[in-house]
Parts: sequence; structure tokens; C-alpha cells
Amino acid sequence: MRTFRTNQQQRPKKSTLIVGPEAISKALQEGKALDRIYMQNNLTGQAADVVRKLAQEHQVPVNRVPVEKLNAFHVTDHNGFVAVISKIRYYDLQQVISYVVDKGEVPLLLILDGVTDIRNIGAIARTAYCCGVHAIVIPDKGVGALNDDAILTSAGALEKIPVCRVNSLMKAVDDMHLNGLQVFASEMTAETGIRDIDLSIPCALVIGSEEKGIQPSLMKICDQQFRIPMKGDFESLNVSVATGMMLYETMRQRG
Amino acid sequence: MRTFRTNQQQRPKKSTLIVGPEAISKALQEGKALDRIYMQNNLTGQAADVVRKLAQEHQVPVNRVPVEKLNAFHVTDHNGFVAVISKIRYYDLQQVISYVVDKGEVPLLLILDGVTDIRNIGAIARTAYCCGVHAIVIPDKGVGALNDDAILTSAGALEKIPVCRVNSLMKAVDDMHLNGLQVFASEMTAETGIRDIDLSIPCALVIGSEEKGIQPSLMKICDQQFRIPMKGDFESLNVSVATGMMLYETMRQRG
Repeated sequence: MRTFRTNQQQRPKKSTLIVGPEAISKALQEGKALDRIYMQNNLTGQAADVVRKLAQEHQVPVNRVPVEKLNAFHVTDHNGFVAVISKIRYYDLQQVISYVVDKGEVPLLLILDGVTDIRNIGAIARTAYCCGVHAIVIPDKGVGALNDDAILTSAGALEKIPVCRVNSLMKAVDDMHLNGLQVFASEMTAETGIRDIDLSIPCALVIGSEEKGIQPSLMKICDQQFRIPMKGDFESLNVSVATGMMLYETMRQRG
Repeated sequence: MRTFRTNQQQRPKKSTLIVGPEAISKALQEGKALDRIYMQNNLTGQAADVVRKLAQEHQVPVNRVPVEKLNAFHVTDHNGFVAVISKIRYYDLQQVISYVVDKGEVPLLLILDGVTDIRNIGAIARTAYCCGVHAIVIPDKGVGALNDDAILTSAGALEKIPVCRVNSLMKAVDDMHLNGLQVFASEMTAETGIRDIDLSIPCALVIGSEEKGIQPSLMKICDQQFRIPMKGDFESLNVSVATGMMLYETMRQRG
């Protein structure tokens, strides 16, 4: 993975950057939505400590990078710190669950494991929003910033549906369990069909990538695997179509 | 609509062309799969009559074009005729229905009205093949040739699922009615939800484009409209995701 550019992500425009430790600390304190902070390798001292602590508090990932990467932003006086402003606001997983439960609704979350193409995430967000999913959970590593391309593919849904970006999907599943959610994993070879899973209870569905599926360690802590029964002998559906079918079944069960 | 190029379709390679009336007539007689024949405007005479008659018999569309368009293929001695070899084989609608009924299966067809983007068609074909759809019906106008791009998006499904390319979708629906099929149209504003439609009977589902939906004249001769019940206030799903949900419901009802 390249540190600050992906195929889908052009170098951020200067207007979307915050430069230097003081400005970044201020932005974090003000609750500004940041996609990511790039901090120079081996930087120590008070400024680094403050930024790191605030970033952790506000759940903004910090990438340690060589100074050349920072220079490539073509900004002056970065002093080892560049932050990219986020196009969308990320939400805290626990807060989302609590909010949904407080509203008297039955939580329904989507966990994307290995779905790293931001346009795929956009397409899934569009469907998820239509189907009443409360939040999409993505890891903070391996996924590019959810930029204009992603928002366009989502037909704007990414600006409406909460996205929770978490440091660890394993921990996110643990947190869901602590909140009484069941976590169901889609897996082509599973014995149980999706119709035999009770989707009317508080739950999360884990979607893997088309190529690799769900990582084994995550699969292990899921409560149950299910498959979508297919007629054809075809290897697999497109990930956003498969997600659509799962969410259709969920809506059907929830009435 | 441009006559022989679309955004998705580069100018065909010379190796995929058949040039001149004799070679084209021979290819038609041999049953070679042709995507389309380009014939010079105002051309008359025996050669034109023969090609036109054979093309009609073999259901290959003929586009009348100015000579400049033919010259743009950069082939010599076209004598007013250039044909593009098809990447996929098109099937006759009646033959497909008869074949399915003879096998003792309950026909399930998809009609694509206004879904002109060949990558969307590819994505839909992938899902349709997984879900046991017997054939996809597309109009012969407004849809680009189903080329490598389309086949790639379909993950190869376009080479496996029969595609019926028809001169008129209205006539295709008439033919389906004569064969005892019911034709159901997806329409966001319909009163009836898809779950209240009996999809276990011989039937076809009509899918419209995301922008325009289904054309009114076609909608009029459909037997029933249905909608996919949605939770969100979102305008509409992506057409291939919506198709996935419809086919999921069909598989569910068919058991």
C-alpha cells in the first residue's frame, strides 16, 4: 500500500490540507473532520506528543512517513506535520450504536473487510443507505480517503450514512458483542443459507473482498457464517450486488 | 446516438470486420455471429437486397450510414458494406423460450429497456447468470456492441448466458405473452411490493435505466408494476444492485 496516494486518490489539493503541528492541533481540538495526519518519521518532542494524543482522542489515523513524502505535498513550513481534511465526517462506533438503541431501533451495521476500492465502498454505501443500515464500519488502514470519487459513486450516500473508521476490525467486533450485537459473516462455502439466519435481531454483517473474502482471524470471532444460495455455477457475485441481496433479505425479515 | 462508436466502444479492429457484400452474405449464410452490418446510404441493387434479406433472417441489425463512416474503418474495397463480427452469440427469443420449456423449467427472462451502458449490461449479466436467468433481452438500437469491456465486467457471464437482441421490445413482450409468460415491470412508484408478485410462474422482469425508467409504451403492455420496498428516502438503487434484489426475491420464491 502506498502511504498517501492510491489509484483512486489523486494528491490532495492544498486547500484540503492543514499544515504544521499548531494548526493541526487546533483543528483537532475544534473537532474538524480529518482524514489522516502524516507525521515525519522519528519526530519526537512536545509537538509530536500533543498531535499524537489529540489524534488518538479524535480517532484520526497518524501515518509515520519520510520527510520526502511530506515535501511532496508542496507546502511550506510543514515542520514534519501535514493533515488532510476529510470530505466526510467519521463517527464513533459506540456512539452510533448507543444512538440507534436510544432511538428504539434494532441496530444493523455493515463491516467491510478488505473492500479497499473506494468506489466499491461508495457503491455499497448507496445500497446500505437505501436499506436502512445504521453505519458502515471500515478499517483505517488499506482504505484510501473517501474522496469526491467515492462520494459520487455513492450518489451522495456517503455524506448521509455514518461511516465508522476503526483502528481494528477485531476490536470493533468485540465492541459489537459487548453491545449485544450478533456478527454474521458472508462466506460462499458456508453451509447455512442467509434465510436461516435471524437478521431481525441487533446484528452486523461482515462483507469480504471479492478476491480474498474475510480474513481468517476476523471470521473466527464472528457468530455465524452464511451464504447466499445461488442457482448458477458462477464463482461469485459482485460485492455490491451481493451486499444488496443480503440487505434485501434483512429488510424482508425485519418487515 | 452515434452510429458506430460509443464511449465504451473503440473503433473495431480490422480482424473483427468482414468487408464487402459477398463476404458478408457468406458469413450470414454460415451462421457466423455478427454484431451489426453497416451499409452505405441509398445503396440499391441485388447485393443490397441479398444482404438485407439475409440480415433480417439472421436478426443482424443493418445501419444505413454515409460512405464517410465506412471509409473510417480504413478497409479497402468495402463496396458499401462493412460488418462487425460479434464477440458473443445472440440467441433467438422464441428458441430460448421453447428450449427452456422443453427442459421442463419455468422461464425467467430479463428485459433491459434503456440500459445502454455496456458495462451495466455486463454487471447485470453476471448477476443474472448467478441467479439462473434463462436469457437477457436487449434492443438492437441504442446499445453498443457487447465487446471485451462488457464481457470483462460480466466476469465472462455474457459468454454463458443467452442474450436475445430484438428489433422491438414491444414485439418481444407480445411474443412472451403468446408463450404464456407474465411480464412484470420494476417501477419505484408502483403500489405493489415485489413480494406480492408471484415470481414462481413463467415470467420476465423489465428493468429500466436509472435516469429514465421504463418507456411508457412498454410499461403499458406489462402485466403488473412492482417496487422494491426501501427503508431509506434515497432516490434509487444502482440498476445492477436493484436487479440483484429482484432476482434474489425470485430465487427465494422459486425455492
